[in-house]
Amino acid sequence: MTDRIDAGAPPAGDMDPEVYRQAAHQVADWTADYLRDVERLPVLSPVEPGTVRNALPASPPGTGESISTVLADIDRLLIPATTHWQSPGFMAYFASSGSGPGILGETVASALNVNAMLWRTAPAATELEQVTLDWLRQMVGLPQPLFGVINDTASSSTLYALAAAREAQSDLRIRELGMAGRPELPRLRMYASAEAHSSVEKAGIVLGFGKDGLRRIPVDERFRMDPVALRQAIREDVAAGIRPVAVIATAGTTSTTSVDPIPAIAALCEQHGLWLHVDAAYGGAAAIAPELRWVLDGAERADSIVLNPHKWLFTPIDCSVLWTRQPGVLRDAFSIVPEYLTTTDGSELDAPNLMDYGTSLGRRMRALKLWMVIRYFGADGLAQRIREHCEYASMLARWVEDERDFELLAPAPLSVVCLRAHPPGLDDPGTLDTLNQRIVERINSGGHYFLSHTKLRGEYAIRVAFGNLRQEQRHARGVIAALRGAIDDVG
Amino acid sequence: MTDRIDAGAPPAGDMDPEVYRQAAHQVADWTADYLRDVERLPVLSPVEPGTVRNALPASPPGTGESISTVLADIDRLLIPATTHWQSPGFMAYFASSGSGPGILGETVASALNVNAMLWRTAPAATELEQVTLDWLRQMVGLPQPLFGVINDTASSSTLYALAAAREAQSDLRIRELGMAGRPELPRLRMYASAEAHSSVEKAGIVLGFGKDGLRRIPVDERFRMDPVALRQAIREDVAAGIRPVAVIATAGTTSTTSVDPIPAIAALCEQHGLWLHVDAAYGGAAAIAPELRWVLDGAERADSIVLNPHKWLFTPIDCSVLWTRQPGVLRDAFSIVPEYLTTTDGSELDAPNLMDYGTSLGRRMRALKLWMVIRYFGADGLAQRIREHCEYASMLARWVEDERDFELLAPAPLSVVCLRAHPPGLDDPGTLDTLNQRIVERINSGGHYFLSHTKLRGEYAIRVAFGNLRQEQRHARGVIAALRGAIDDVG
Repeated sequence: MTDRIDAGAPPAGDMDPEVYRQAAHQVADWTADYLRDVERLPVLSPVEPGTVRNALPASPPGTGESISTVLADIDRLLIPATTHWQSPGFMAYFASSGSGPGILGETVASALNVNAMLWRTAPAATELEQVTLDWLRQMVGLPQPLFGVINDTASSSTLYALAAAREAQSDLRIRELGMAGRPELPRLRMYASAEAHSSVEKAGIVLGFGKDGLRRIPVDERFRMDPVALRQAIREDVAAGIRPVAVIATAGTTSTTSVDPIPAIAALCEQHGLWLHVDAAYGGAAAIAPELRWVLDGAERADSIVLNPHKWLFTPIDCSVLWTRQPGVLRDAFSIVPEYLTTTDGSELDAPNLMDYGTSLGRRMRALKLWMVIRYFGADGLAQRIREHCEYASMLARWVEDERDFELLAPAPLSVVCLRAHPPGLDDPGTLDTLNQRIVERINSGGHYFLSHTKLRGEYAIRVAFGNLRQEQRHARGVIAALRGAIDDVG
Repeated sequence: MTDRIDAGAPPAGDMDPEVYRQAAHQVADWTADYLRDVERLPVLSPVEPGTVRNALPASPPGTGESISTVLADIDRLLIPATTHWQSPGFMAYFASSGSGPGILGETVASALNVNAMLWRTAPAATELEQVTLDWLRQMVGLPQPLFGVINDTASSSTLYALAAAREAQSDLRIRELGMAGRPELPRLRMYASAEAHSSVEKAGIVLGFGKDGLRRIPVDERFRMDPVALRQAIREDVAAGIRPVAVIATAGTTSTTSVDPIPAIAALCEQHGLWLHVDAAYGGAAAIAPELRWVLDGAERADSIVLNPHKWLFTPIDCSVLWTRQPGVLRDAFSIVPEYLTTTDGSELDAPNLMDYGTSLGRRMRALKLWMVIRYFGADGLAQRIREHCEYASMLARWVEDERDFELLAPAPLSVVCLRAHPPGLDDPGTLDTLNQRIVERINSGGHYFLSHTKLRGEYAIRVAFGNLRQEQRHARGVIAALRGAIDDVG
């Protein structure tokens, strides 16, 4: 029997359907083998820069090659140069693990290949997105009405939300007239904590607030925004003729997963008429577990909220949910309908055209993978997994507290632990930083775990992030042993 | 034998690897069947708004459901509500068809699920993106050096390019100080033709140029930007104290696929120090065919170029290439590196961190699908397919020219034809618009073809877009027959 996937491309059209079928089965096995075996691969790729570039031909092939040749190259060239986010040993940054049902959803979406720019170009994708995001809203305990759209990343969702916040200053007519060369415009300001994500600053730059248009508010000893300092900052700015526009509160900051006091921040926003954006890209998923629902306390008063299912909801990257209580303002910030995109399909409520709620006109069917994840695991199954990840973090935090040579550098309310080695008597900050940097390098080069770092109060902190779907208690025990072993090796 | 995919979710972790394997094989067959049979389905979904939303449960399942249940719901609920972009009868907007190798690439990317934000988090994805975009550069005949990144859509690519154009006005210090409340800033202006895509205007709004910050330049009788009018506009603005920043030239406009005179525009940009962005999102792919390479004449002088492989290069949505000759400026516009993302892996040249070149921090491994498409079809195979699509457009255009009751409304240099029914003696504009609108509705409701429309010189034009990978000459003949039949039915 001939291996059909070695047939090469036909002279016209797509792959022959039966050649595609055989190749798709081969890829199905490839992905199943990969997911089964990923734990055995070095988590952080050990390759040097240029390895893949130098191994690939400098020019494209003129005539086509077979799929089996390509798959062999993936195994030979790409896998050794891959850092394995799917591995349970991946404990760097925030976990971002794609589950089986999510991968299957992405495959079906790729085959359908719809562009959900307009309701009519993708009725199923458009309505599925609305239904799925309403399911997720219920799962995290937020009240109706809340309009949602899926974007690629939290950076995009936050950009869109803050564009809406700017648009909400409707008297300034920024959409029509822009911002430059208008002496009548006041300076504009947004507020976020010192621990808020860099995407907030980036959105401010893109939107013309500039870096100076974002004022960083100090945090308390638990890395949470200080609402008294926020109130003071707003008052100072108003007194100086600067117009406050928005506050970004974070539910799960990137360094320590601290949760800002959203109710107090919401009260200030209501008092001053500011847009409240809640960055729950990581932390929002925790609210699916009833005992962790507190992370979104106050978010029901927000104008916009971002939550990334591709972080802690086992949905393949990319999938970022932007919810807003002000869909009309978001649409005003973005909607431009040229003639070639006009439709007469129904009311905005019945048949929204999702291109109107952000920069991107083209929209992949991202809802399908999230819908399949929710259906396969169920709300309770997802809560259970999140709960377990938080238990691994608690186990590690307890171990650190009991260990003479280690210390916690921040509370660990969710699935991330910030810690460092701090042997008794070793108190020089530079020496401690170097020691901990060496521990991370030692562990990362071992291939079993990949950790990242941050700085807290100016000092180097090791960050251990649980949240990978394939993590079990043994991986928490394993990283504890690795930390213990590393300090003995490099200390 | 038990159907393993009916097993439901386990109490912890991901799907059992062997349950996943069985489900992946079922999905492989599902996608193969879909691609084989898609032509038999109604192209434009006939459902009413709300059909899917009302058919799905209002709340998420508490406990998990089996994959086979979910797949059955996809067949039963989602497919009838899908507009089939993969069907060869899809001739609306621009074709966006995902090929077999592209779908396989997306599946592998979903299983790997890397986030290519930093080189170290995805060495293979980062370097593959660089290599693949250099292959594509060679295929369309653009000279080195040209730095490329893949974004989700042309709207994002254009936003990023124009953010770089703004950043290039470095004396204005917009990144640091923003744009509002700065009386010393001049008004800023961008220029694009009256036929340029709405994403240019949207980017201008986001970036604080405002709608007024984009000046629309008139087009000639073939819908191409008039460079004399552009020169005049720049002169007028400079005289009025407005600062010109960028010109957006289009290689393949959305309504008629007209190609702006890029060399003349480039000369003006060089003379006035303006950023030249070339929107070749649709048309750039044509340059792969040597006889169509003229569409990018002059683009070698551009500061940035966008080309969407998800449009006419058979790569599943989303995949938009942004090239720039000024990577440093693009990086200056976007790079913010917080402590938790610092690395020491290598030089910028060896190991670029692709998060630094746009808004999105998270980055799906989009290069893999494009690389697999290029390898499977080869550069010659892709050129051949593009050539055929242009031949179908020529065939339709010739028929229209010969038909007494139809007329061409614009030249058809690539794969799109703008036409209308215009029976002799019927000259009232309103009546003609209504007749042609009815023809489109008639054809779209028939299920075999999906056409869209535009307005040209204020009049309704039927747009027939070839470019779907599964189109053959019989589909071009078929839509000709459908147009002929529709005028007889509704005329």
